[in-house]
Amino acid sequence: MAEARARQYELTKPAGSLGRLEEVSVKIAGIQGKGNPQIKHKAMIVMAGDHGVVDEKVGNWPREVTAQMVENFLHGGAGINVLSRQVGARVVFVDMGVASDLKPDKQLIVKKVAYGTKNMCLGPAMTVAQAVKSLEAGIEVVTTEVKKGLDIVGTGDMGIGNTTASSAIFAALSGKTAAEVTGRGTGITDEQLKHKIDVIKRALEVNKPNPEKPLEVLAKVGGFEIGGLAGVMLGAAAAHIPVVIDGFISGAAALIATALSPQVKDYIIAAHVSAESGHAMMLNYMGLKPLMSLDMRLGEGTGAALGLFIAEAGVRTLVEMATFAETAVDEGGNARA
Amino acid sequence: MAEARARQYELTKPAGSLGRLEEVSVKIAGIQGKGNPQIKHKAMIVMAGDHGVVDEKVGNWPREVTAQMVENFLHGGAGINVLSRQVGARVVFVDMGVASDLKPDKQLIVKKVAYGTKNMCLGPAMTVAQAVKSLEAGIEVVTTEVKKGLDIVGTGDMGIGNTTASSAIFAALSGKTAAEVTGRGTGITDEQLKHKIDVIKRALEVNKPNPEKPLEVLAKVGGFEIGGLAGVMLGAAAAHIPVVIDGFISGAAALIATALSPQVKDYIIAAHVSAESGHAMMLNYMGLKPLMSLDMRLGEGTGAALGLFIAEAGVRTLVEMATFAETAVDEGGNARA
Repeated sequence: MAEARARQYELTKPAGSLGRLEEVSVKIAGIQGKGNPQIKHKAMIVMAGDHGVVDEKVGNWPREVTAQMVENFLHGGAGINVLSRQVGARVVFVDMGVASDLKPDKQLIVKKVAYGTKNMCLGPAMTVAQAVKSLEAGIEVVTTEVKKGLDIVGTGDMGIGNTTASSAIFAALSGKTAAEVTGRGTGITDEQLKHKIDVIKRALEVNKPNPEKPLEVLAKVGGFEIGGLAGVMLGAAAAHIPVVIDGFISGAAALIATALSPQVKDYIIAAHVSAESGHAMMLNYMGLKPLMSLDMRLGEGTGAALGLFIAEAGVRTLVEMATFAETAVDEGGNARA
Repeated sequence: MAEARARQYELTKPAGSLGRLEEVSVKIAGIQGKGNPQIKHKAMIVMAGDHGVVDEKVGNWPREVTAQMVENFLHGGAGINVLSRQVGARVVFVDMGVASDLKPDKQLIVKKVAYGTKNMCLGPAMTVAQAVKSLEAGIEVVTTEVKKGLDIVGTGDMGIGNTTASSAIFAALSGKTAAEVTGRGTGITDEQLKHKIDVIKRALEVNKPNPEKPLEVLAKVGGFEIGGLAGVMLGAAAAHIPVVIDGFISGAAALIATALSPQVKDYIIAAHVSAESGHAMMLNYMGLKPLMSLDMRLGEGTGAALGLFIAEAGVRTLVEMATFAETAVDEGGNARA
């Protein structure tokens, strides 16, 4: 990081004038452990899972949409496909626990822990063994990608009902109330929002997750894709790969990952703050400062894909710009600063 | 725009969930006059000019840096080179009024109006004829690019002293005080800032630019690159090309362009709000909402290059994503909304 910071000062620009790009370049230098980091091999890991809590009618989209959207991913027609193509990232789709069997596809990795979680209003969403299994699956997926060549990874999710689980995780770990951390997901009315908050309250009352035990929180009110994404973050950090996280669901996974291992925070880059109410608070709770704020709330990793681009812009300017010494440009204000 | 808006509703995502990407896609559809806009041919136009007001010691960088940085541009070593390569935009550098003769280069267009403006503290920065010439040069440059194939254009600047001129333009047109609209440019101390504000006050008192006459404002307290960029905006709008503007200096050019022809505003996309104090106020004054806020203050069009990427992301998602009708995805909340 010191090496990168020093180089930023030598580049032909007023010191600090690339703002957040400089900041992210220095962070990535630290993560990759080299003053001239590189971003060549990029991957998006998008994990899907279903949620038993959908039985409580927490949103407007039927459970089946999870599987339908995975099919859409595999045909290249979703937002994340378009944006991954634009940023030049390969995409890995993972079935972590979709409620139906998906058609085999070479782009789809099947790590199905179960056919959806159980309804967390009636008891734990999953067993602790399943929570461990979902974390391990995430670690395996990212480790496989590391072997193929990986300089940076983005995370994304698909799972009808997963903003409900994510709000429950945030409330459980932070002690904030359900009302504070619950938003409108894909778009619900005031009345539906009130109901969603009640559902989360009930899930917390029934399960009483211990905030000191992140694995228990994941098991009681989490989701398979959320556990999987937490595993991706743990595995990426262990391999010194920066992880660009998407919105509210990736944020909930980051809460689990950083609760399990606080150092993971240093490997996470928050791509954007989403339009989901509670996301800004969640990032702030983790001490992560988002790169962008584009009123997005699609999930799938769409925000993370844009974040990959900004991270790459930071690294490219750090590595490719000329220094004062290499040019005839006067150091001006930098020399005097 | 209506066609694009309707398609956004048909795409496989919750309506509105791509936020600002949807907004910018609809705007570009309107500008290009087609429901399925395209962004294939991208160009950055970076204009350079010197400023007589540098005699008043308004910053820390010597005048010579303008020419030195243009040379750096032509060698591909500046921030704008790196970011333009990343977004796949060709770059056109224009000498609008650098104080010295630059070495001929096939990437450099020479439209030199004069060897730098005059010191605006002592009288007008340029004649009205020169202001007209700078606008016309900008129109010519962008028109040439349109002929080569152009779907979107970004603007950038290089000119030691040009935040001073830009603040003066903003104060002159808006009636705001010099203190309100003046920031630290490439980085100055509190004392230097006080001096810079005094210089701008003096320039306004000496010249008394009429806020109703944008051409007079440009002549009295503007710059050749600022006039050129205003011309680029006028020419792009006339050719139905969206213009992604960079920071404070491109903003000052947009103030001139929109004062001359208010409809130009509809063709402008504000890439980012820069760290230069006064820029947020300037965008707000024009009713433009920036896409990003990355604490950047380098100029050169670096923010605009990133803005080109976001604009392209908006257009690509609009055009390339699958619709509900094309897939088996349930319309869920969209149908009910």
